[in-house]
Amino acid sequence: MRADMLTSVLTELNGTSGDIEASGVISTDGLMIAAVLPAGMDEDRVGAMSAAMLSLGDRTAQELARGALEQVLIKGAKGYVLMTYAGEESVLTVLAKPNAKLGLIFLDVKRAAVSIAELL
Amino acid sequence: MRADMLTSVLTELNGTSGDIEASGVISTDGLMIAAVLPAGMDEDRVGAMSAAMLSLGDRTAQELARGALEQVLIKGAKGYVLMTYAGEESVLTVLAKPNAKLGLIFLDVKRAAVSIAELL
Repeated sequence: MRADMLTSVLTELNGTSGDIEASGVISTDGLMIAAVLPAGMDEDRVGAMSAAMLSLGDRTAQELARGALEQVLIKGAKGYVLMTYAGEESVLTVLAKPNAKLGLIFLDVKRAAVSIAELL
Repeated sequence: MRADMLTSVLTELNGTSGDIEASGVISTDGLMIAAVLPAGMDEDRVGAMSAAMLSLGDRTAQELARGALEQVLIKGAKGYVLMTYAGEESVLTVLAKPNAKLGLIFLDVKRAAVSIAELL
């Protein structure tokens, strides 16, 4: 089952670092394809905000001559949201803790995004 | 003159690294306060996209329980856009090259944002 395989990539990703709190694969139109989220976190909300940020990120990258969009990172006082294209029509969104080691997370997320793109 | 002092902080910031291509200080409603941009880059466009990304970033950080928004980073194939709050009502936007050393840029931008917040 493709959904099971995606879930297993996400479970592995969340397990690579104690700093990763949640992850999900979302179609670029905002529908959740697979997710490993903590209890109480709403799938639809993660999907909707990811799609909205990517859409505006695409436009910003284009308007400011940054080439094709690859990632959007949001840093808040209580943690990070990292959105990375996994193939052309889906996005890997990861929520991480405020003191997360960003270099490691970029690396693990990049690898997971490649695996996800191959599954889709 | 306050505008001259802001411009001088931006000029210094752009000079700290050959990877920084442009920088600007923008009010949270999208109006340019000061900018050091390369020829051909439109101030209004940088202002408008920065304000739009920050506004959606604020909402995303809130909806996904990431606390108060501090930064938004966009990575494109041809470079980065980094937006950082400088005080509560203005934003420092920096455009950097694709192979920029992000750690150094985060550091230099953070220092410049503190100087800008003191001037405003």
